[in-house]
Amino acid sequence: MSGPVFSFSAIVGQDDMKLAMILTAIEPRLGGVLVFGDRGTGKSTAVRGLAALLPPIRAVANCPVNSASAQERPDWVEGPAGRLTSRPTPVVDLPLGVSEDRVTGALDIERALVKGEKAFQPGLLAAANRGYLYIDEVNLLEDHIVDLLLDVAQSGENLVEREGLSIRHAARFVLVGSGNPEEGELRPQLLDRFGVSVEVRSPTDIEERIEVLRRRDALETDPEGFAARWRRHDLRVRRAILAARERLRDVEAPEAVLRDCAELCLALGADGLRGELTLLRAARALAAYRGEARLGRAQLRRVAAMALSHRLRRDPLDEAGSAARVGRAVAEVLA
Amino acid sequence: MSGPVFSFSAIVGQDDMKLAMILTAIEPRLGGVLVFGDRGTGKSTAVRGLAALLPPIRAVANCPVNSASAQERPDWVEGPAGRLTSRPTPVVDLPLGVSEDRVTGALDIERALVKGEKAFQPGLLAAANRGYLYIDEVNLLEDHIVDLLLDVAQSGENLVEREGLSIRHAARFVLVGSGNPEEGELRPQLLDRFGVSVEVRSPTDIEERIEVLRRRDALETDPEGFAARWRRHDLRVRRAILAARERLRDVEAPEAVLRDCAELCLALGADGLRGELTLLRAARALAAYRGEARLGRAQLRRVAAMALSHRLRRDPLDEAGSAARVGRAVAEVLA
Amino acid sequence: MSGPVFSFSAIVGQDDMKLAMILTAIEPRLGGVLVFGDRGTGKSTAVRGLAALLPPIRAVANCPVNSASAQERPDWVEGPAGRLTSRPTPVVDLPLGVSEDRVTGALDIERALVKGEKAFQPGLLAAANRGYLYIDEVNLLEDHIVDLLLDVAQSGENLVEREGLSIRHAARFVLVGSGNPEEGELRPQLLDRFGVSVEVRSPTDIEERIEVLRRRDALETDPEGFAARWRRHDLRVRRAILAARERLRDVEAPEAVLRDCAELCLALGADGLRGELTLLRAARALAAYRGEARLGRAQLRRVAAMALSHRLRRDPLDEAGSAARVGRAVAEVLA
Amino acid sequence: MSGPVFSFSAIVGQDDMKLAMILTAIEPRLGGVLVFGDRGTGKSTAVRGLAALLPPIRAVANCPVNSASAQERPDWVEGPAGRLTSRPTPVVDLPLGVSEDRVTGALDIERALVKGEKAFQPGLLAAANRGYLYIDEVNLLEDHIVDLLLDVAQSGENLVEREGLSIRHAARFVLVGSGNPEEGELRPQLLDRFGVSVEVRSPTDIEERIEVLRRRDALETDPEGFAARWRRHDLRVRRAILAARERLRDVEAPEAVLRDCAELCLALGADGLRGELTLLRAARALAAYRGEARLGRAQLRRVAAMALSHRLRRDPLDEAGSAARVGRAVAEVLA
Amino acid sequence: MSGPVFSFSAIVGQDDMKLAMILTAIEPRLGGVLVFGDRGTGKSTAVRGLAALLPPIRAVANCPVNSASAQERPDWVEGPAGRLTSRPTPVVDLPLGVSEDRVTGALDIERALVKGEKAFQPGLLAAANRGYLYIDEVNLLEDHIVDLLLDVAQSGENLVEREGLSIRHAARFVLVGSGNPEEGELRPQLLDRFGVSVEVRSPTDIEERIEVLRRRDALETDPEGFAARWRRHDLRVRRAILAARERLRDVEAPEAVLRDCAELCLALGADGLRGELTLLRAARALAAYRGEARLGRAQLRRVAAMALSHRLRRDPLDEAGSAARVGRAVAEVLA
Amino acid sequence: MSGPVFSFSAIVGQDDMKLAMILTAIEPRLGGVLVFGDRGTGKSTAVRGLAALLPPIRAVANCPVNSASAQERPDWVEGPAGRLTSRPTPVVDLPLGVSEDRVTGALDIERALVKGEKAFQPGLLAAANRGYLYIDEVNLLEDHIVDLLLDVAQSGENLVEREGLSIRHAARFVLVGSGNPEEGELRPQLLDRFGVSVEVRSPTDIEERIEVLRRRDALETDPEGFAARWRRHDLRVRRAILAARERLRDVEAPEAVLRDCAELCLALGADGLRGELTLLRAARALAAYRGEARLGRAQLRRVAAMALSHRLRRDPLDEAGSAARVGRAVAEVLA
Repeated sequence: MSGPVFSFSAIVGQDDMKLAMILTAIEPRLGGVLVFGDRGTGKSTAVRGLAALLPPIRAVANCPVNSASAQERPDWVEGPAGRLTSRPTPVVDLPLGVSEDRVTGALDIERALVKGEKAFQPGLLAAANRGYLYIDEVNLLEDHIVDLLLDVAQSGENLVEREGLSIRHAARFVLVGSGNPEEGELRPQLLDRFGVSVEVRSPTDIEERIEVLRRRDALETDPEGFAARWRRHDLRVRRAILAARERLRDVEAPEAVLRDCAELCLALGADGLRGELTLLRAARALAAYRGEARLGRAQLRRVAAMALSHRLRRDPLDEAGSAARVGRAVAEVLA
Repeated sequence: MSGPVFSFSAIVGQDDMKLAMILTAIEPRLGGVLVFGDRGTGKSTAVRGLAALLPPIRAVANCPVNSASAQERPDWVEGPAGRLTSRPTPVVDLPLGVSEDRVTGALDIERALVKGEKAFQPGLLAAANRGYLYIDEVNLLEDHIVDLLLDVAQSGENLVEREGLSIRHAARFVLVGSGNPEEGELRPQLLDRFGVSVEVRSPTDIEERIEVLRRRDALETDPEGFAARWRRHDLRVRRAILAARERLRDVEAPEAVLRDCAELCLALGADGLRGELTLLRAARALAAYRGEARLGRAQLRRVAAMALSHRLRRDPLDEAGSAARVGRAVAEVLA
Repeated sequence: MSGPVFSFSAIVGQDDMKLAMILTAIEPRLGGVLVFGDRGTGKSTAVRGLAALLPPIRAVANCPVNSASAQERPDWVEGPAGRLTSRPTPVVDLPLGVSEDRVTGALDIERALVKGEKAFQPGLLAAANRGYLYIDEVNLLEDHIVDLLLDVAQSGENLVEREGLSIRHAARFVLVGSGNPEEGELRPQLLDRFGVSVEVRSPTDIEERIEVLRRRDALETDPEGFAARWRRHDLRVRRAILAARERLRDVEAPEAVLRDCAELCLALGADGLRGELTLLRAARALAAYRGEARLGRAQLRRVAAMALSHRLRRDPLDEAGSAARVGRAVAEVLA
Repeated sequence: MSGPVFSFSAIVGQDDMKLAMILTAIEPRLGGVLVFGDRGTGKSTAVRGLAALLPPIRAVANCPVNSASAQERPDWVEGPAGRLTSRPTPVVDLPLGVSEDRVTGALDIERALVKGEKAFQPGLLAAANRGYLYIDEVNLLEDHIVDLLLDVAQSGENLVEREGLSIRHAARFVLVGSGNPEEGELRPQLLDRFGVSVEVRSPTDIEERIEVLRRRDALETDPEGFAARWRRHDLRVRRAILAARERLRDVEAPEAVLRDCAELCLALGADGLRGELTLLRAARALAAYRGEARLGRAQLRRVAAMALSHRLRRDPLDEAGSAARVGRAVAEVLA
Repeated sequence: MSGPVFSFSAIVGQDDMKLAMILTAIEPRLGGVLVFGDRGTGKSTAVRGLAALLPPIRAVANCPVNSASAQERPDWVEGPAGRLTSRPTPVVDLPLGVSEDRVTGALDIERALVKGEKAFQPGLLAAANRGYLYIDEVNLLEDHIVDLLLDVAQSGENLVEREGLSIRHAARFVLVGSGNPEEGELRPQLLDRFGVSVEVRSPTDIEERIEVLRRRDALETDPEGFAARWRRHDLRVRRAILAARERLRDVEAPEAVLRDCAELCLALGADGLRGELTLLRAARALAAYRGEARLGRAQLRRVAAMALSHRLRRDPLDEAGSAARVGRAVAEVLA
Repeated sequence: MSGPVFSFSAIVGQDDMKLAMILTAIEPRLGGVLVFGDRGTGKSTAVRGLAALLPPIRAVANCPVNSASAQERPDWVEGPAGRLTSRPTPVVDLPLGVSEDRVTGALDIERALVKGEKAFQPGLLAAANRGYLYIDEVNLLEDHIVDLLLDVAQSGENLVEREGLSIRHAARFVLVGSGNPEEGELRPQLLDRFGVSVEVRSPTDIEERIEVLRRRDALETDPEGFAARWRRHDLRVRRAILAARERLRDVEAPEAVLRDCAELCLALGADGLRGELTLLRAARALAAYRGEARLGRAQLRRVAAMALSHRLRRDPLDEAGSAARVGRAVAEVLA
């Protein structure tokens, strides 16, 4: 939908998706968010809404990688560094069928041919620095692009070595991918590298659906009034996120919680060890968001499904969905 | 058929298709129109006819994106802006197998090579601005092109970032796609992003078919007489559309109608929430076209099938077509 | 076979194919001719023979699109327009595997690179203007090329927009395609866009085959005598075609004939409305050829199969060929 | 085998293959020769041997298309035309996987880039003019290349229109293709366009095989003696071919023979009419080779299999090979 | 994980993988290491950790192939050779979908075009010289790239002959590949060319998993303390490796051990002879690491599985894994 | 294995492979050698070892095709011809996935672009002239490359006609291909064009395997001593090969031996006649190697399997391998 951004707070329901996005805004090391589910459930709206409620970033004017200071500006950017200016937290859309050059940036061929100069043409990873990179239908993206995105998202740096260029720039962003499991699956290797996953469904409650329609209709017929009404809800979320970032390092993780994490993953037969590490990070971010000083089972319970359900092996004898299987394990292990 | 455009009003029957096109002429936010059906049923004729009956647009002379004023003209267009001139509402055909560059526009390689200048070569999206983009057999188009078209149609802007170019221009148009379901299906994700859909069939009534033949024969043997005869019918449609555009924002949507929309979609099990939103918009456009000040069930009934039938999940136990299933739900919910 | 063109009149039998070609020479709006059938049955010979018996065209010297006057010459043709000269009606062969650039024409890359000039290199569509475009084994051609050809054949204009070029030129020609149904089928969408279709078979009558051999042998052993002998038959056909073109617009189409057309198509369950329109046009061309002033059932009967048989849906319960099914319907409806 | 060419006359057995090649040397309009059969049976050796026994051709020095006179030299050949010199009858090998550019010739890209000149780089068709073009394993060649070769072989002219070039040159040659039916079939359309076909088998007679080995061994251990011994046999064949070319046009074809040709083809159910025409030509060439003034059944019998057996439809109920089926029909019709 | 390298010694468990890497650090002729197993088991962490604990290398400043002296610097490196400087042992990641040019290096096209100079652009093989080349999911890499890597790894030299370049440079590195056997298999030919293989599994012991989590959490919350704590363990491993390199050539291999190697391979039915040779080398490296002067059965037992298990033919009747089959053979032969 | 070449004579066992290579060193017209068999059986080692024991060749300094004299140097080689110098018999490896340009040589594009000069960049065929061309896993090479190699190997000349170049140079080499029949088969057409084939197996005799390991270990721990020890064995083989080349033409082939060859091939049902010719040549080379003046059954028996076994048709009822079938036929025919 063109026009003004829909308020994050005005999204009806979809609590898991909203929480997952908030947690990655607090602790970016959680890694990307994978949103499974029906179309038309506001995935893209939510990313845009969250970015819009975060405070604008301060960046060097005209810097293509949104550098926070002249010192951080990559040396391949030409001209003198400008003043710091404010710009909204970036949200970059990754189109299907995008080329690797477009993602990473590449030699500016046209300038090389025409002017005989070797210059770097920054790509989408540059534009997404310090913000969000959104991929609709990530399951339709080519594997090597997804690999590349996850690598960069993890390392926080984009390194381009091609055609005589050797270019680096910061590329810290939260990757948000949406996927419809009916249209193609992700390889387990890739699934595992997303930090958290959530499922969204079209609401089946009639009142909830009417509420969605009512808000949409309000937006279309009275955009200014709508925006004013929801702005203060969004500001409240912003303040909570900023406070949680401050508190995060101080949240204590008792030994018993480490054991709970490991036992839960073992009970679920999750491969590798990314599961328990993510679980721990997500729980800590949740505690910080809630203003809690010490991790306990309560936070583990709330985030277990989003941290673990995309890391289970398929069990042909167990027809319950992944989230349900995580729920059962939580009930047993964290009883 | 080369030669003069066939009058929109002279199309025999096909009321749903004609109404759908009229509604998008009133409320472009409805999104594209998807026309399913037999070949030779005048889909292309209808688009061309509707565009021809709309008032010509006023645009800056020689502006490749049909800008309405010198201010709106993109800054990459070279030379001084010309005077405003009238041109027909554009109708652009998207050929099968078209390249992405051709659609979005691209660097003018030839000029870069020959003259050493970097210039943008506008594409079909530029030519379609403020008009119609027609795709015959949209089901045969490559997915990434369809995605791109729907994205631009929704955002109203074409953004080209390639080879050192970063070009934007307005690209507001109504997308009209035709498809023959026997020759390949559209992914549900794409179906859902078309605003309305209609089915057209070859008339089976002998008198109707003779009437079609009679009008075609008249066009071929006496083109001037034919055009004169139908011109005033077309003018009447034009006036009604222009009036409806004025009235649109004032049509009232009572709470009960919102509830009807939601209940209808829920009863049909339509995924996501685009269904009820489209239903509401289409009904409002219809009310405006009919000169009605307040939405009610009558308008919902008329447009429910075109707003919803391409959004149903396939039901293997229900052999009725989508339109019939919508009809049954309408009968129950809006009884 | 290299050497002199075989006389159209000297073709033994194959009356349907010859009539279909004559009708399109009278009324080009009939659209292309599709010839199904065995190899070695003289399809290519017939096209070449028909073109050779038509009067030469008068065209601007050196004009690559055979323009009839300096005014009609496209503005991208360089140099001063030459005098009018006579040239044979063009017959252009479309090779299998031909590229789209070769068909439509394209930027003359070599000149752009070497001389830095932007020039259009006309393609096969230019060469075929005012003549015939022959495609052997059209069923082996790529769909997008066939689409393009049918589009241009219908609109009479070739529009090339690529690489900074925006070139138009007239491209009025009759498309003749041959196909062997055993080697691949055409999509119904494409079939429908050919105006008429005929089937050719190797003759099974011994005397007819000997006659073919006798004429071929005469051509090889005495080419001059052969050509002289058949020239006057060809001239007679030429005169009849020229006269028919004059008379065409004056042939009257009574209401009853329109009804016959519609009933016949309805009885056959032909999709769309192109069937009855083509039937009407073909019958009118036949009447003109025969010097008849008014359409009646006789002409419908003669051309029904060629106008309709490629527009039937396949009927798995009816093993008769399409032509036989049309014949039965003609017998019933036009009894 | 590198080294001296093996004498055509020294080939042991393989009478059909040798006769077919001789007939096309007398009457090139017969079209190409297709040789089916086991590997290692001397197909390539035979082509090379036949070309070597024909008289050398006189051609303009350095002319890339072997033009017979300065007048015939294409105008795109640069520099002054040289004197006439003798060169052996060309035999050109078509490598598998050859590109269309290499076959037809193409723009000399390198010269265009480096010197800014537009020059034609002749291809294999130029080199084969007035000689033989040999394709080993024609069934493995891409269809569009085979089509192109057969088109040029039939028209005798190579027309290249590409990249701003419009080049013609004579390309008269006899196409000889070998194929192993176990490794892939030719489409019937292509089969039909070869003039004659023969089958070769490894000899199963022990004395014949020893004779082959003895001659090969003699060639390797005493090449000069071997060549001297067989030279006069080859000269005898050369003289017979040259005489037959003179006599060819005077061989009389009585009406009864035409009828025999047609009846034979009808009895065999051969598609199209190329069969009887080829049969007639081959028989006439044979009569000329034998010095006979009038065609009769004797010559038909000898050449029927090579003219017709590759033109039969497959008959699933008749397990005999094609040649045997032709033989039976000959026995019945020409009894 | 971005940030500081995780200490090699701090890896919990995974003794086989760690030993295999240590052995190749002692005896590079062992060839590459192939690590099979679950994701998230620290394969990449281990390579990085091992490289980080090895002493930095001394290399010519700015030399792209890490040459140890000005004499060894390839002559295509431009400018005067710099001083020797220290740099960490290189670890190069081979991205999936990497091009051959990127791996081997290639002509610097951009410089050729822009400056008209022919220069070599070194690739990943240059960067990996004297270090490690790590390939995640080697089973997804294209065969020809894997072949190339194994060839270079074996010869120790990268030879690039392309586009008029003939470039050589040292490329001595240890190849480490990880693979998930569930996602595609390696050809036996390739498997055989890896020196040793190990399997890694996610730990199933709860205490071990907690320990992993505890160490990871410590790294995240107190990176400096963590690094200090593990540095001395790493130094101990470094010293042992350096000492083993010195001792390696002096380890004695008695005749009986050669016989043991051959008998073991024969008992296992290993193809070829690379098995026993690798076994011997690995055992010798182990003895050197342990400070033992003479090879015996003890070392063979420890390394038999890693040297041989990827060289077994699949045995459909024996469901045990390869490692288990090696273990059984060891038990029998080396009883 | 990098480092010194392993001595040909030090290869344990593998007598057939070694004899086949020696015979082609005596009589290059035998054609290529195809080695089937397990990996790790020293195929590549053997080629390298044989080349190393042959006397160095004398060639014009810096000549890229190893010309034996300034007269033989191709005229496209630039600069004055240097002195004759010695260089080892070349062994060229053909990498998998090699391009045709790299094999045959091609226009030096870089020089054309940068300097505007047209120069030939020689390929692997040039480098292999007068030596060996080794292809590991020939069954994985693309067919058109194998065809090209066999054509050049047979004709002894590489002819490159591309992009305005027309370049020839001598390319006389022995082609050695290795293949693993489990990984893909060669087309019979290609098999037949290899002169001889042998099978190699990993030794199953324990003492033989220990001997291999012992020699390898000696090479690694004492390379100089190892080389000295085997050098004189290699010199003995060299002298025998040089003497056999002198004697080859004088070996007498009695009529009875020709008959034996033909009968053996007939008994085996070998297609074509390459079988008996190769058999004769191989037997003659063997006689020369053994210093025998006259061919008899003894030599035929020794080489029958290598000359014939890759030329048999597969016999589904005979499960014995090809070599065994040849052995049985030898036993019967040459009893």
